Amino acid sequence: MSTFSNTRKVRIEWGDCDPAGIIFYPRYFEIFDASTAMLFERALGMTKYQMFKNFKFSGFPLVRTRARFLKPTRFGDDVTVGSTITFGRSSFEVEHRLELMGETCVECSEKRVWVIRDTSGRLKSHPVPEAVLEKFRR
Amino acid sequence: MSTFSNTRKVRIEWGDCDPAGIIFYPRYFEIFDASTAMLFERALGMTKYQMFKNFKFSGFPLVRTRARFLKPTRFGDDVTVGSTITFGRSSFEVEHRLELMGETCVECSEKRVWVIRDTSGRLKSHPVPEAVLEKFRR
Amino acid sequence: MSTFSNTRKVRIEWGDCDPAGIIFYPRYFEIFDASTAMLFERALGMTKYQMFKNFKFSGFPLVRTRARFLKPTRFGDDVTVGSTITFGRSSFEVEHRLELMGETCVECSEKRVWVIRDTSGRLKSHPVPEAVLEKFRR
Amino acid sequence: MSTFSNTRKVRIEWGDCDPAGIIFYPRYFEIFDASTAMLFERALGMTKYQMFKNFKFSGFPLVRTRARFLKPTRFGDDVTVGSTITFGRSSFEVEHRLELMGETCVECSEKRVWVIRDTSGRLKSHPVPEAVLEKFRR
Repeated sequence: MSTFSNTRKVRIEWGDCDPAGIIFYPRYFEIFDASTAMLFERALGMTKYQMFKNFKFSGFPLVRTRARFLKPTRFGDDVTVGSTITFGRSSFEVEHRLELMGETCVECSEKRVWVIRDTSGRLKSHPVPEAVLEKFRR
Repeated sequence: MSTFSNTRKVRIEWGDCDPAGIIFYPRYFEIFDASTAMLFERALGMTKYQMFKNFKFSGFPLVRTRARFLKPTRFGDDVTVGSTITFGRSSFEVEHRLELMGETCVECSEKRVWVIRDTSGRLKSHPVPEAVLEKFRR
Repeated sequence: MSTFSNTRKVRIEWGDCDPAGIIFYPRYFEIFDASTAMLFERALGMTKYQMFKNFKFSGFPLVRTRARFLKPTRFGDDVTVGSTITFGRSSFEVEHRLELMGETCVECSEKRVWVIRDTSGRLKSHPVPEAVLEKFRR
Repeated sequence: MSTFSNTRKVRIEWGDCDPAGIIFYPRYFEIFDASTAMLFERALGMTKYQMFKNFKFSGFPLVRTRARFLKPTRFGDDVTVGSTITFGRSSFEVEHRLELMGETCVECSEKRVWVIRDTSGRLKSHPVPEAVLEKFRR
């Protein structure tokens, strides 16, 4: 089992916020989805688009997520998202921590599966390729 | 403590789906947010917009959510969302079950707080007004 | 050249609105995209998903859009979207009019192309199939 | 009348794309909305959030937009958005050009009005403050 982390900055935009003036919470999950993709990009040196061309890979859909919202954020905030991945066999877990000026605003934990398409085109889970895991170990 | 349920139909749209051809999961949280608002609309006989005018009310932001994704949905699917609310004092929990043709696709549980603005304009939790609770009891 | 119209109701949601309390305008384009898909569904008797299975079809991406925003809408508003399609050879135009209680809030005109994938997987324009046009004529 | 330009980089994300594998076009308008906000941030040295505190200002809603979509973009693309603003009295126009590796993918022109709230809370147009225009002239 290997662990790998990445941190990135995200600007909360006007259009991410609702009439209460704070972020509309589904936008956090958009941020976390992109943060997970960026973890792979950093480890593999290729974008998710390139992953489709280079691996037996049809995505890593969510099977479970949990989030706690501790402090609201608003447009103009530049938040930091720290993400840590831990691999299972055909699945992996990512812990995201979103912070504003050192204070945790959201904690999220997600479990995803690596999927490929079977001959009928259906998505099914598949062991994460060794070539992928290897890059995360370094 | 009182319980109240509502069911509504939602069409999954092309623009809700990602390059894997299935719904991009943050869209589920948009659906659940609207489902929670609709619970209040059904019980109170007024929209969320009207709630701002009729109650000490500045929203009901999330403090926690958990979701399990059991089966994917895709554009053109007409899903059913059943939502059940249970009130605490200043908070409430909602259980959402999203189904497609009788099969559960997503289960989500959320905890929200009823908030008002204090004199400095900051959001703070506040007991759910009795006039609101009463409508849910009927 | 044939013309076909459809009207549908859409609820503007809390999460569609921005800190000014009115709809965040990109949400209108999500509404119009779904309205165009619904035009086809009404004429063809099948969803866009089924169109992929039944026709030489890989989507109808936009090539141009223009919109005028006359009156804002807000969460809780039930708006009416009237859409009229006019076909060219490989393209079509749709006029959308979004109204709230009889007053026009947004006018939008869009031009789209019918596309298929060539052997290399690239999207390219293609004449709208006669079997499609026929359904719109009735 | 004064003119001011800004350029920024934007990553197109997986969640911005639709089942055709290309960006879902309403996402472009989210990008352009943030690009317009960034123009003001660069000129004024403050975020849109701070503008609400520092000026008679309640937003700059769209009155009109036009866009042409020349080439699609997809997840993993790092696009460049160049935006140029030209002021009228209570309104302004912004031209956006979105490019990928030197090729124009989208051209968009938008007209917005500077609004304030009247005593009844309604949004109405208002001349752009001289203190704002001054910053754009430098």
